[in-house]
Order: sequence, then C-alpha cells, then structure tokens
Amino acid sequence: MASKVLQNPSLKGLRHKLALLRSLDANSPAVRPPTQLYHNQARTISRKSFPTDSRGFLACTPSLQYHGRTHPDFIFRQLSTTSASTQSSREVPLTSTVYPNLERGTFSKITPEDVIFFKELLPQRVVTDEEDLVAHNTDWLGSLRGSSQVLLKPKTTQEVSKIMAYCNSRNLAVVPQGGNTGLVGGSVPVFDEIILSTALMNKIIDFDSPSGALVCQAGCILEKLDMYLAGHGHTMPLDLGAKGSCHIGGNVSTNAGGLRLLRYGSLRGTVLGIEAVLADGRIIDCLSSLRKDNTGYDLKQMFIGSEGTLGIVTGVSILCPPRPQSVNLAFFGCESFEKVLDTYKESKAHLVEILSAFECMDKESMMYVTKYLKLKNPLSQEYPFYILIETSGSNATHDEEKLNDFLQHIMETELVCDGTVATDYSKIKMIWYMREGVNEAIQRTKVQYKYDLTLPHKAYYDVIREVRAHLRDNHPELPICDVIGYGHVGDGNLHMNVIVEEFSSEIKNALEPFVFALTSEKKGSISAEHGLGFNKRKFIGYSKTDEAVRVMQQMKRLFDPKGILNPYKTVPDPEVQN
Amino acid sequence: MASKVLQNPSLKGLRHKLALLRSLDANSPAVRPPTQLYHNQARTISRKSFPTDSRGFLACTPSLQYHGRTHPDFIFRQLSTTSASTQSSREVPLTSTVYPNLERGTFSKITPEDVIFFKELLPQRVVTDEEDLVAHNTDWLGSLRGSSQVLLKPKTTQEVSKIMAYCNSRNLAVVPQGGNTGLVGGSVPVFDEIILSTALMNKIIDFDSPSGALVCQAGCILEKLDMYLAGHGHTMPLDLGAKGSCHIGGNVSTNAGGLRLLRYGSLRGTVLGIEAVLADGRIIDCLSSLRKDNTGYDLKQMFIGSEGTLGIVTGVSILCPPRPQSVNLAFFGCESFEKVLDTYKESKAHLVEILSAFECMDKESMMYVTKYLKLKNPLSQEYPFYILIETSGSNATHDEEKLNDFLQHIMETELVCDGTVATDYSKIKMIWYMREGVNEAIQRTKVQYKYDLTLPHKAYYDVIREVRAHLRDNHPELPICDVIGYGHVGDGNLHMNVIVEEFSSEIKNALEPFVFALTSEKKGSISAEHGLGFNKRKFIGYSKTDEAVRVMQQMKRLFDPKGILNPYKTVPDPEVQN
Repeated sequence: MASKVLQNPSLKGLRHKLALLRSLDANSPAVRPPTQLYHNQARTISRKSFPTDSRGFLACTPSLQYHGRTHPDFIFRQLSTTSASTQSSREVPLTSTVYPNLERGTFSKITPEDVIFFKELLPQRVVTDEEDLVAHNTDWLGSLRGSSQVLLKPKTTQEVSKIMAYCNSRNLAVVPQGGNTGLVGGSVPVFDEIILSTALMNKIIDFDSPSGALVCQAGCILEKLDMYLAGHGHTMPLDLGAKGSCHIGGNVSTNAGGLRLLRYGSLRGTVLGIEAVLADGRIIDCLSSLRKDNTGYDLKQMFIGSEGTLGIVTGVSILCPPRPQSVNLAFFGCESFEKVLDTYKESKAHLVEILSAFECMDKESMMYVTKYLKLKNPLSQEYPFYILIETSGSNATHDEEKLNDFLQHIMETELVCDGTVATDYSKIKMIWYMREGVNEAIQRTKVQYKYDLTLPHKAYYDVIREVRAHLRDNHPELPICDVIGYGHVGDGNLHMNVIVEEFSSEIKNALEPFVFALTSEKKGSISAEHGLGFNKRKFIGYSKTDEAVRVMQQMKRLFDPKGILNPYKTVPDPEVQN
Repeated sequence: MASKVLQNPSLKGLRHKLALLRSLDANSPAVRPPTQLYHNQARTISRKSFPTDSRGFLACTPSLQYHGRTHPDFIFRQLSTTSASTQSSREVPLTSTVYPNLERGTFSKITPEDVIFFKELLPQRVVTDEEDLVAHNTDWLGSLRGSSQVLLKPKTTQEVSKIMAYCNSRNLAVVPQGGNTGLVGGSVPVFDEIILSTALMNKIIDFDSPSGALVCQAGCILEKLDMYLAGHGHTMPLDLGAKGSCHIGGNVSTNAGGLRLLRYGSLRGTVLGIEAVLADGRIIDCLSSLRKDNTGYDLKQMFIGSEGTLGIVTGVSILCPPRPQSVNLAFFGCESFEKVLDTYKESKAHLVEILSAFECMDKESMMYVTKYLKLKNPLSQEYPFYILIETSGSNATHDEEKLNDFLQHIMETELVCDGTVATDYSKIKMIWYMREGVNEAIQRTKVQYKYDLTLPHKAYYDVIREVRAHLRDNHPELPICDVIGYGHVGDGNLHMNVIVEEFSSEIKNALEPFVFALTSEKKGSISAEHGLGFNKRKFIGYSKTDEAVRVMQQMKRLFDPKGILNPYKTVPDPEVQN
C-alpha cells in the first residue's frame, strides 16, 4: 500500500512522483514504535528453531528457509537430495578421508578416565552418545565431519577454565563451538577434538541503559539478545541471517560482519570487553564496559576474529545503539557498475547518518531469483545491476525527506534508471528477499563454488568480469553455467558464485588459486566475513604477508604452546601445509 | 544573532520560546557548506604552529592558547612563571634525578660509529646538537626530561626498518616520537634512548572517495589530514585539542579518544590498516583499506594503543566519514548529576544519529572559568551542573527539529532548568570555550593534580564526591582549594582536578593510590584516553588483572625480546617496579 514505484523516470514526471511519495508517506505513522519495525518483526515472525530430526541433525527442506532468511552461502548439495529422515553421518564423509594427507596432531586420545573427570566436573552435561554428537561433529555446510567422542557443556567460566587446565595437562585438543553456523569449518572437529559447547552459557549479566553496554555470557543467542534489548529501546550492533542460532561468543570469535556493519561499524569497535579462557585454563578478564580504556595492550582484540585458536571467549561486553524508529528501503535499476558506485557515493553524501545498507546484485543474480524462486522483479524491465538501499533513523519524516532528496538527485543525474521505494514491512521484506534469495534460487537446481571477498570499490565488479574472461578464454571446455556477483557494496564485500551443474576437480583447479591470486592482486581480502577456519587457512598468504603470518604463528605459540585450541584452523602451522 | 536563550522556563512560555527558536533558525542557511563549519573554521582561524623559541622549545604564553583551544590537561606550572626567552633545559629536571631509584636498562650507549652509520643512512636528517634536542627530550607537560643525544628523521618505512635492525643488533634503545603532545610521558626518552621522529613521514598516499578510506604515512599532522579531507567532503573520525601538532601515527599508537568518539567510535573500529616496523626491523604490512578482512589475527590492533612499545607505526589507513553539514550546540543548567544522566539518556533517544558530543562540568568548574577567564555564564543563574550537547548532521532543518523536540521534552520533564542554543559559529565557539577553558582558568593562579578516568555512568560523579569526603574526613589538615569534575559524559570520561596552591608529597600521598583504588572499585579505568606511558604504568594493576598484565609482558617479550622499543613505558617490566 505504501509501496511506490518510480518507473520510466523523466524529469518531467519526477516532481509529481516525489509529491506522491510524500503524500503516501504522510499516511504512515511519523514515528513507529520499535516493536513494529522491520528487523524486529522479521525475527518475531520467523522465530523458531531450525528444524532438526530426532538426532538433532539438520533437517533442511528444499526451500531452505532459515529463520525466515536463506542462510548466507548455504551449500545445499549434500542435503537437498535426501529427506531429513534419512540424513545420517554417512552422507557427510569424514574430513580425515577427504583430506588424506592431513595428519592428526600429536595430541592424546581421550580415555575413560578423562570422561569420568568431565562427568564429575559437569554432571549431566557431558555428551558421549555417537548419535547425539553427529550434528556437533558436522559443519553447517554439511561438507566436513569430525569424529569427536565427547561434547562438554559448561555453564560457567570457572568450569571452562577447569576443562582447559585439564586438557592442557593431558594434551587433549579442544574445539570451541557456539551455534555451529560458521561457513569455513571453524567450529567442528577435524579429527577427534573434544567439543566445548557454549550452549549453556546463556545468561545476560547486565545492561546499562544510559551507556547501552550489554554484558552477557558467550552462549547467548544473538536474536535473543536483540529481543531483550528491544524492550530497552536498544538494538544489537550486528545482524546476521544466522541470528536465531549463532552465539554472541561465536560472533565475536569470528569477527562477524553482517548487515549492520555499514551503520554501526565492526565488532572491533563495538565490543567493549571480553572474558576469555586461555589454553592452559588461565582466565583473562577484560570484561570492561567502558568506552575509553587505555591501560596497556588491548588483549580483547586478540580474541576477536581468532576463531577460538587463541582462547575461548566466555563473556562479552558490547555497545548497543538506540533502536531505529523508522526503516525505509529503495530498490533501483542501474546501467553500469560505475553508476552503482557513483550512487553509493551520493547515498553517503545525502543519507549520511541514516544509511544502513547498500547492497547490489547483477542481472544474472536477478535472473536466478525470478526464474527459480518465481519472484517478480519490482522494476518494469531488466537492468545490468540492481541496488538495494536501506535507511534506519530516528525520525520517519526526516528520513523520508532525506530519501526523497536523494532520489531526486540520482534520478536527475541519471545515475539510476528506475526504482521503487518501500516503507511498509511486507514490501521491505519482499525486496530484501530478492537480494537474499539468490543462494536459495541457485541451490534449487545447481551447485556453486562460493567466494566471499572484500575488494576496493573500484575493483569490486572487475573480479567478476575477469573470472568470466578467464574461464571463457583459458577453460572454454569447462561446463560453467554462470558467474554471478552480489553483496554488500557498502562494505566492499562481494559474494561471487560460480554456478555449475556438478562439482569437478577440473573446475576447482581452474578457479583456485586463480580467484585468490586475482583478489590479492587487487589488494582485496580472500575472506571478508567468514574467516579462514579449516577451509581457507592455507590460502592466508594471498591476503597477509609472510612476515605477518610468522608473527601470527608466534602469537599462537605464545597463547597456546601445545596447540590444543582449535587445531588445524585459521593460521597454518609453521611446518604443516594442510 | 542566532543564539537563543531559554531562561526561567515554564511550560506556559515554552511553546513561544520554541517557536522563536524555529523562526530564528529559519533564517539560517538550510545546509551549510562544509567549509563554513565550526570544526573547520576553528582550525582555519587558529592554524599556526605552536610558538617556539629559537631552540624549538615550547614558548607558552600565560594565556596558554593552543591552536585556538587550551591543550587538554596541560599543566602549566613549570612554564608559566618564566618567559619563553628564558626557557631552558635546566628548568625541567632530568627524569633520572626525579626518579633516582629507576635504573637504566642494560642497553648499549651510542658511539660515534653509530652516529656515522645513521648519518650515512639519513643524510642531513640526524640531529645531535644538544640545544636542538631539548624540545624533543622534554615532554609536553614540562615534567619529564631525558638525555638523548641523537634524533633521527627517517622519511620512509624502509629507513625505519634499517634503523631498527641496526639498533636491535647494537642493543640501542629507541623512543618513537610523533608530535610529542602526549600527557603521560610516553613520547620522550627517560634516559638516553635514541629519538626516532616521524616528522618527515608526512605523505598522503591515497584517498578513496567512495569508501572514505585515507592512507597516509604516520607523521601526517591530524589537522592537515582533516583539511585535506574537507576538500573531498570528508572529515577525520577523531578530533583533539592537539590536532595542529599531533601525528596520526601517534594518535593511533596511543589510541587517542578525543571529541568525536561518541559519534564515530574508537580508532579500534575506524583504523582499517597499519604498517609497522618491529623492534628487529621487520616490516608488518597490514596497510589494508578494506572494511571487512577476516584473514588471521588482526595484528594492527596490537599497535593501536601500545604506545610504540610493540612496534613503530609507519603507515595508517583510516575510515573517514562524510563531513557534517550542520552543527548545533546546546548548553543547559541542571539541578543534579542524576538529571545530567537522565538528560544524556534522552539525548541518545531523541538525537540518536546526530548526537556528536555530550559534555558536563560542575559548578566549581564554571566558577573557575567565570572568575579567572572572565567568561560570562550564558545562563542567568548558577546551577550545580552544566551540560554541553553538540549535534552534527547532514540536514540543518532536520537537526534543528530534532533538537527542538528534544528541548521540549527535557524542559517539560524538568530534567534541565535553563538553557541556551547556538547555531552560529561564534556562539558555538564561545560555549565550547567555557567547557575547554577550565584548565587554563585554574592554571592562571593555582596548580592541580589531574586524573583522567573512565567510569560507569552511575559512578561518574560519585568519584568526585568521595574524593572530597576522603580529603575532608581523613586529611582535614591539607590545604586543598577545590576538587572539580568535568569531561566527556558520553564516553564516561571524567577529568578530575584537585586544585591546590602548591604541590606537596603529603597531598600526593593522600590522593594516590586512593584515587586509583576508588576508580578500580567502581570498575573504572585509571587512564581513559591518555595511556599509561611513563607516568602511570606502575598503576596498571588498578585497571587490569595480574593475569592480563602477565600476558602483556609476554607479548612485549615476543615482539621486542631485547626491550629496546620505548623502554620504561606502558607495561611494567616483569621484574622492575619503577
């Protein structure tokens, strides 16, 4: 009802259309209560646990609805051809068989005495049943599977400390696990590492309303924290598709990016404090809630983004901004990527403090969502590129005026060809789904090689063009369906999907390390927001210098001399190339 | 002209006053060009080098104007009683004589052969003249003086690398120095450390307008960077009183806070990349300009805030926001600190995305600026507390409306008693000067013990009350003039000044470690934004646990095994208590 389509724009008709926008928006409530907002509603409507079968294994349906959104970069291939009831551990091969050259570290093997120790320490909170362990041994993508025999569920930092002190003395390897929603194999065992789950460390410790500082245990689920904060007029400074399952401790440990980074910045700035347990059980209590603290080195930064390899995050203090009172969405068609970038620049200049997302998708991405999800392109014709802009502000009237001024400018300067604006929830949700549904659309019929890259803006889409040219010119024999690009332009974060009918080593070898080398050449990052985990750690050299990697290896040795914390992840061992 | 005073507010008269506000503001330009803004103008008007005498020594005048603002926390005692022309090194005692128990590290002493090496490496850029070295040996406060015999001025990272490799092989200690504006003695030698100045590393390497990423050498002066960015419609995400002298490398190395932190967040989030040279000359190139990069440990964070003890920052990449198009200031009288906090909470709720500063001063602070600076309290009567609120936004009309709604709310709810609002430059500048002039006012006739603390909001002003009670009840014999408090409420950053006629060991012993213990008890930080440097490192235990300090010591040993980088600073040596 409040959606407005600007089609075939001309300067002649523009004023009338903008006037229409204003008049329609005048019927909207000037300031919406936080509980009626898009972000909140989207969660409330879809808030349910991810369906699992009786053994807790993923029970995906072909539509792959994940808490109301498609899980980002979910590869469906291993699961989509079987029903939930027939899922078993046999369907995901053991990681050790997929990587036969990978050697198990010289860690101890768990003994019955070890299990007795853990059961005394954590009564009723030690899982040893093989069936119950399947979901925790298997990564979210269904592409890796470890063979851990023990999962521990501590409730307190002191318990984590005792576990680690024991494991360190016994030389037992440990993998920390939050919601197990990671996409690079960082949160599952590679061999038989003990799984330390933060699932029961789910207490909110404190919220200080004047400062917005929230302090909680690491196992709190992101969505639940956001709902708690909604009652206090605040919001979490990060938002992810996986928010219904992921733990804040996992978010912090992987330096999660997500949808709000453009507005609220990275966790490097919003995390105020961390409590962590080192490999030997020492507790590092830096759980401060202060915005300014320059007393010595900022140790908490070492635990942000190190994927549990330097310590286990047990507590988090995080700065939570006021909840936005109005949300608007605009969707445009654009003739070239250069104009997408110019539009981004103008959006920063015009929308400034209310700009909360700037996303892009190419026409090939749009083709997949219209063809396979049967979604209707909200614009009347096709364009080479589409832009999604979200504003979040404190005053609906002001936001609308800023947005209208911006619209007028970009249409007068012909940066965009066509567009539609939405202020009501259902339209906002539908347009977001166009952008977020690309994965689901592909996975209905194809498989894909996925790359999560950050690139300087000027090189953002060049990568897509150059990979297409590389495949066309150097590998014309390979059966490639499409190379498509979409993602968070505002953050320079490109999701490139190479879509094929079937996986093959020939295609993979044509793509890797070519894609990583190309990204490196353009001064990009081979992992924007997913981390390196198990899957990408051997490619770290494409984003970091040898000197930097050597220092990382030294830091790993300093924090975890025996290497028991999340082995085979993030930073390559000095002597091992897996 | 556009200043408006709301005096003796009553609900009856409020509507008329707010209407007046609106009508006056209607005469203001709706959107001001960036070049006419407060921040920019303030700098442009006052942009000149700090006056120095022929030897480059500080030549302060009693009015202590520092680039148009009082230098924060400048202790004037050593300098104010002598004219610039008579300043000499004799007036600041050697640090080694003030701290006779402090032992020089077992570093080599510099030899003529060393000087020859440096002169070959840096032709015409090695300073050995004793007179020329005075200013670089002496800290900004004039309270510490080292006896370095050599100052080096590299221009490139490679030169810094060669210097450090040489010094490491020769076991020569080095102190990195930027603008030497630090307030905790972190940037001057304690004994005879070689001074490595970044003054000639002042090149802007790149600015990417769409992303706002600026890349530059470490020696670029903050103000010059901001002026450069003004031409591109952007601004630096930090602002300091010392911006006319301080180097961005120094800002990063000390994790500078400043006036814009409330709006743009800390350098932990805005610094995108760093290039640094380790103690042994290895170059760590993490000079990325990407907003998202999760490839391994974030080494750059180790160089932010470690005050040059882990490496020398040689290059910085930083995210620069769009320059605000409108700035407003409001100044209020308030009956209690509890109402100050409630007003802060409301300002966050109403002003949200445009709130850029929330400062407070108590009536004692106001007394000093009115009595000694002859400034006129803009309100018609005295109040226990005063609040300064700044908004910075992209649309003057919207900002004004938000501000007016906020004003109406806080006056209707009687959170504030009286107030004045300014939108024009001269009034804004005058009101800022009321807040920033406290130091200067004190230093005209008194001396002071200064504490730079962060506290949880609920404990913010309790510290002042408890210190007053402590001095009154436990040390009634001591001649204390006043204990005053002011600072950045938005950041929880309190500047507490204990004002006395003369320094004495009795007063110092009554205050320390009492103030630090009290801060620790309230879960505050003993150094909000100044760092620990030389002066405060022995008090680190009041803000960090023993375990955390031990890990810091291990990190220091890892990055700098010989301890040659900025010795005697930041983190106490494991075996030494200075």
